[in-house]
Amino acid sequence: MEVGQCDHLLLQRDRAFLSVVFDRPQVRNAMNLEMVHELERVMKAVAASDEIRAVILRGAHGHFCAGGDVKDMVQAQERQQQDPQSDPFYALNRAFGRLLCLVDALPQTVICVLEGSVLGGGFGLACVSDVAICLANAKFGLPETGLGIPPAQIAPFVVRRIGLTQARYLALVGPWFQGDEALRLGLVHRVATDADGLKKELDQVLTALASRGPKANAVTKQLMHRVGSKPINDLLDDAAHAFSEAIRGPEGREGTLAFAQKRKPKWAL
Amino acid sequence: MEVGQCDHLLLQRDRAFLSVVFDRPQVRNAMNLEMVHELERVMKAVAASDEIRAVILRGAHGHFCAGGDVKDMVQAQERQQQDPQSDPFYALNRAFGRLLCLVDALPQTVICVLEGSVLGGGFGLACVSDVAICLANAKFGLPETGLGIPPAQIAPFVVRRIGLTQARYLALVGPWFQGDEALRLGLVHRVATDADGLKKELDQVLTALASRGPKANAVTKQLMHRVGSKPINDLLDDAAHAFSEAIRGPEGREGTLAFAQKRKPKWAL
Amino acid sequence: MEVGQCDHLLLQRDRAFLSVVFDRPQVRNAMNLEMVHELERVMKAVAASDEIRAVILRGAHGHFCAGGDVKDMVQAQERQQQDPQSDPFYALNRAFGRLLCLVDALPQTVICVLEGSVLGGGFGLACVSDVAICLANAKFGLPETGLGIPPAQIAPFVVRRIGLTQARYLALVGPWFQGDEALRLGLVHRVATDADGLKKELDQVLTALASRGPKANAVTKQLMHRVGSKPINDLLDDAAHAFSEAIRGPEGREGTLAFAQKRKPKWAL
Repeated sequence: MEVGQCDHLLLQRDRAFLSVVFDRPQVRNAMNLEMVHELERVMKAVAASDEIRAVILRGAHGHFCAGGDVKDMVQAQERQQQDPQSDPFYALNRAFGRLLCLVDALPQTVICVLEGSVLGGGFGLACVSDVAICLANAKFGLPETGLGIPPAQIAPFVVRRIGLTQARYLALVGPWFQGDEALRLGLVHRVATDADGLKKELDQVLTALASRGPKANAVTKQLMHRVGSKPINDLLDDAAHAFSEAIRGPEGREGTLAFAQKRKPKWAL
Repeated sequence: MEVGQCDHLLLQRDRAFLSVVFDRPQVRNAMNLEMVHELERVMKAVAASDEIRAVILRGAHGHFCAGGDVKDMVQAQERQQQDPQSDPFYALNRAFGRLLCLVDALPQTVICVLEGSVLGGGFGLACVSDVAICLANAKFGLPETGLGIPPAQIAPFVVRRIGLTQARYLALVGPWFQGDEALRLGLVHRVATDADGLKKELDQVLTALASRGPKANAVTKQLMHRVGSKPINDLLDDAAHAFSEAIRGPEGREGTLAFAQKRKPKWAL
Repeated sequence: MEVGQCDHLLLQRDRAFLSVVFDRPQVRNAMNLEMVHELERVMKAVAASDEIRAVILRGAHGHFCAGGDVKDMVQAQERQQQDPQSDPFYALNRAFGRLLCLVDALPQTVICVLEGSVLGGGFGLACVSDVAICLANAKFGLPETGLGIPPAQIAPFVVRRIGLTQARYLALVGPWFQGDEALRLGLVHRVATDADGLKKELDQVLTALASRGPKANAVTKQLMHRVGSKPINDLLDDAAHAFSEAIRGPEGREGTLAFAQKRKPKWAL
């Protein structure tokens, strides 16, 4: 997997698991446009790779991500003053939405490890993970409308994550909350009380993923994403074809045989 | 804001917040057709107003709303006997659904303060709020099918509020439940144990809303409502345009500037 | 109601309630294709019957259902080797999805009583119930991708039951969990600590259902199922017509009259 130079991300590979660490500690890993583009590049490379089974998104230095970098806004303002016909705010905002779609639909399983600030765009990234693990004292919130702007690209993913009822409350009233509330709202799947616990939770997820069929997971994720946008009978037809293809393919043949023989499948890590 | 005479509602204005109090204590604020029409008139006036930022819906005398007034049913029966071609039941029922749509889509933030009976149509109104605060001993339920009739206009809003899984159980089996269960089901956002606590919760929400951009909130609410009925990429395009418009408009310019200068925006109350 | 011979199901009738008991204890009630077809036959007969108001799905000998029977897979493999043009895996898988659709849309209220193994296809059946009651130590899980195959027909129903956020985690990571977690995830409605408690919960639901209008319940269920697949205004138009028809029909007339007279409606059991 070739992703080129990344200035704002640290990439760490462990077996089939790729950690992508946001590394802008001076701004609690707030994303600027460059970092968004780097993430886009990495995600596209991952999507095309057969070697990676899971991606772990996390932040360096105790924070996940504090949202969008305000310096980008200032630069967009300047660009627009120079060329009033252009719409750099549109471009800036839309780029982040493309990234969210990319992560959401990644064939690989995506794990977010959430500590410290999980705000705005960081909150948005948490909303497109397959697995979200957080520290009990992580700080979640949607501060946008307090600045007179909507959480534009993020809002749809918050609704899809936790439903309209909770999303409208969080976005309009803007309360900050912590890990236990994030669990209750269905934003995250697991909460740990300290760094050791967080590591343990992550290790458990990776151990579980090591014995799940990567192609089966990719197909399952794709099926689940299409619920609601396709008539149920069409979806079930597709699902039955996907099932037939999987069980006759190498991963499914070996997986079901191993199950019958009460041993690990060869494709398990 | 001009709404004309209201016989079944008390209107109280405090800064940019409008309280709409159901005032039919003799029937635990059950709604008759007149009250529905009054609410419709008030909501349309609010929707057109730039002065109101939030609407508080609540009931006088310790009850939110016990549902539809049965006297309306009797009158509909009589009207139909006089004119068998007419369908007064259809008209009566459909009027309430129009009100629910209106409240649901109101540009302003809608807060329901729930005490005592929150039944049938009252339950429906709770389902279209942005913020729902209740007393721990409030009584929630969908009694309709126990009378041999469906919770017709209400049912879709219950599904959208708490999901099909919980909605089908509540509507078909009909259990009554209280505040903590309403919180667990995701019907309400906050529970208070007594009247003082309820006031405190409401004050906190209003304080928070006082510093949220009213246009940003309106745009956010509109975006969130369209999730699921529009392809995600179209929605994200619209969202990016809305973002650009907001950040270049007076509310967003002042809001982001105030944030950078670590002061309150001028539009905050 | 005539359903013919069933080799893998026990049918028990009590008043208007039909218990359908999975009876393949040697495989923890795992479903083979024959059992799926038997269930399909029973559900079609129930759907056409005016006598049955609720169906109780449960398993004999302490297990609900451990999923699909692996022997079916082996037989499908053999059929396919004999006739490479055929796709017996598609047919096998798709048949189960048809059953899930049938149960989901049954006019009658469907109650799942969940004990022991609730895995794979058993999990899928739990996802299409109107009421799910479980033992605290029931064991829930989606083991499929651990065998290199997707939970194909099941996945859409899991998403519709508990939302994409929880569904993707459960299907991709594959944790097993018990009753309290099933309640928290919104998969089940009630949890009992022992067999007595389970019986008590079921009895309460049946007592409640005995006084709910069966036609009103059927109409309500149908309305709720169409949320999201039809524009809200069309849905509310249909709902108002359904309301008018119900309240002028025998069940609604008697139900509202009985309510006004503070007595049980005659149609109550």
